[in-house]
Amino acid sequence: MAAMKGVILSINSHTWIVDITHQIRPQDIRQASIALQNAYRFFPAGTLHICVVDPGVGSNRSIVAVQTAHYIFLAPDNGLLWPILEAEKTYKIVKITNSQYYRNPVSRTFHGRDIFAPVGAHIANGIALDDLGPAMDKDALTAMRLPRPVLSADNRLCGTITAIDRFGNLSTNLKPVAISKLTGSQKIRPIVQIGANRIDGLSPSYNSVARHHPLAIIGSDGFLEIAVNCGNAQQQFGTKIGDTVQVYIGSDRAEED
Amino acid sequence: MAAMKGVILSINSHTWIVDITHQIRPQDIRQASIALQNAYRFFPAGTLHICVVDPGVGSNRSIVAVQTAHYIFLAPDNGLLWPILEAEKTYKIVKITNSQYYRNPVSRTFHGRDIFAPVGAHIANGIALDDLGPAMDKDALTAMRLPRPVLSADNRLCGTITAIDRFGNLSTNLKPVAISKLTGSQKIRPIVQIGANRIDGLSPSYNSVARHHPLAIIGSDGFLEIAVNCGNAQQQFGTKIGDTVQVYIGSDRAEED
Amino acid sequence: MAAMKGVILSINSHTWIVDITHQIRPQDIRQASIALQNAYRFFPAGTLHICVVDPGVGSNRSIVAVQTAHYIFLAPDNGLLWPILEAEKTYKIVKITNSQYYRNPVSRTFHGRDIFAPVGAHIANGIALDDLGPAMDKDALTAMRLPRPVLSADNRLCGTITAIDRFGNLSTNLKPVAISKLTGSQKIRPIVQIGANRIDGLSPSYNSVARHHPLAIIGSDGFLEIAVNCGNAQQQFGTKIGDTVQVYIGSDRAEED
Repeated sequence: MAAMKGVILSINSHTWIVDITHQIRPQDIRQASIALQNAYRFFPAGTLHICVVDPGVGSNRSIVAVQTAHYIFLAPDNGLLWPILEAEKTYKIVKITNSQYYRNPVSRTFHGRDIFAPVGAHIANGIALDDLGPAMDKDALTAMRLPRPVLSADNRLCGTITAIDRFGNLSTNLKPVAISKLTGSQKIRPIVQIGANRIDGLSPSYNSVARHHPLAIIGSDGFLEIAVNCGNAQQQFGTKIGDTVQVYIGSDRAEED
Repeated sequence: MAAMKGVILSINSHTWIVDITHQIRPQDIRQASIALQNAYRFFPAGTLHICVVDPGVGSNRSIVAVQTAHYIFLAPDNGLLWPILEAEKTYKIVKITNSQYYRNPVSRTFHGRDIFAPVGAHIANGIALDDLGPAMDKDALTAMRLPRPVLSADNRLCGTITAIDRFGNLSTNLKPVAISKLTGSQKIRPIVQIGANRIDGLSPSYNSVARHHPLAIIGSDGFLEIAVNCGNAQQQFGTKIGDTVQVYIGSDRAEED
Repeated sequence: MAAMKGVILSINSHTWIVDITHQIRPQDIRQASIALQNAYRFFPAGTLHICVVDPGVGSNRSIVAVQTAHYIFLAPDNGLLWPILEAEKTYKIVKITNSQYYRNPVSRTFHGRDIFAPVGAHIANGIALDDLGPAMDKDALTAMRLPRPVLSADNRLCGTITAIDRFGNLSTNLKPVAISKLTGSQKIRPIVQIGANRIDGLSPSYNSVARHHPLAIIGSDGFLEIAVNCGNAQQQFGTKIGDTVQVYIGSDRAEED
């Protein structure tokens, strides 16, 4: 990582470099993609996001630059950028092939240092994307399908744990609007269920429940989150990424009990 | 964390951002306060310190800005800044209430990104503290009492382990001046006791004792520290934060033995 | 670490500060030296590298500044810089003794903050090395001998695991040229053996073998590396730094079997 910064500063000594995270599990493209989605929108327009979670380094996988209305992304073509392409309306995609902007020689195992960093620094210097390689269509890119919520026959909204932060808070892929549809105009508090644990309604803050009690809340990423006040939901519930979370209205619970 | 930096740079693209630490245990306001005390004095005058250890995020806890002779601090009103208010002679306290400087909307769980970062960036841009909200008295703030050393009836100075670094070195709340009072004009080497382990006198450096031997030394924070040369005192002694450390003069030891 | 940055910025508010790593095991000068060798060449000419892995802090060990063709290094005289002195053709060595550039007072345990940081910031400000203390000869410095490859009587190239990254990839001290000499003009694929595990030939990329299969590859540091595609070689082989790796040509294997 430090070597990447050295390479960037050797080419462009005026650029700001901010680390998004170094906590991605090895080869976990999905986790990287979620971390990127939760961070990129908060950076200034014109920011270049370099995304090197790259298990295919040295193989024939492509490297692509994607320009959206506000940002440029540089990443391996392994699905990492797919959710951003799905979310952004307009974009231009270029396949990076012009080796004159690479370090020479290029190692087999660290394209972050030898390709991403120098190409990124040249982009920051104002090199046009068109100089870096040919345009590509989105259809030619590797797709990544993130799990989508499902509404079950018995009217349960079934989502997935997508991320767990260092506090043990559990992020899901359930949006408030989907939960609102479930409860409809009724003012019934939804039940949030993770494993065998049921949480009654949504809380306005972590500490609106007693210490060490679980709660559901709309998290800072805009999705339903499950947490434990001054505790660790991951440990308390034994949850892992990919686990199912269900939301349903109280009358269901009444029928069940 | 990265999102906070993005927000800051979106508002003030010329500011330096330095991470103090991301190693604070979740919700550990005391550890955060000690880390801040050990770092803030070393930064240039005019530095703004943003302190987001904030278990009360989203509740009705206040956010305050404190201006001292050399620095501005932005933190939740949860006691984190209390030792700085006790140490600094002059200060001005403002309660942050002017939401025009917040991101919109403000999430329920990440005020670091939605309030602290933008308000801090506006302060760095020159916005006056008076524009951010009403002045407050220190008396209205949440106090945090850190453990203080006690002199026992049998003339033992009893302190507390306040911090443990990644080398396993144990910081205490015992100042050299208190130890000097104990030994007085006598040139007797004090005994430092942690658990059942006794250390004879203070060392001038870590490696002035044999490898893997324990020692006591005045640490870089200005307090008595217990360490093991090329070893890990935390592991060797099984110490945790809050444990007691005693200092007494050698004659006590003689009487005991 | 944060305090070091504060001290630097207090003296030179225009300098870029990049963290190389904070993952060095306590007191592991050899690991620090290897991390430095893998990073320093990628930084812009004129970069000052401050290297504080310093188990002798507070003792009578010296602090030295070394100026090479492109860089300045500031480090304790504990062997950390030795491999750089061996690799660089020209250099100037100065022993840091001019305390007017230190913080005052200097603590017994954190010269990073009290000597390295302020001296480094003054160097960045343009203070000449000659102002910092007297010149030294390389012969007066602490040497560090890194393990060197050995060719055994039965024509096996025996090297050492020198570093393990967070992916569990195993770096060695074996260069491609040494392996080429072994195989000579024959186009025989070399066998790479770690413990009882044999890997057949070198791979062009991590994923040129099946998932979770081991491979040998020339790593980004220019040395032979052992890895597991989408896996962790350190865990799979139970390897630790200092373990032996052997490379030999296939005919040896045939004779053995």
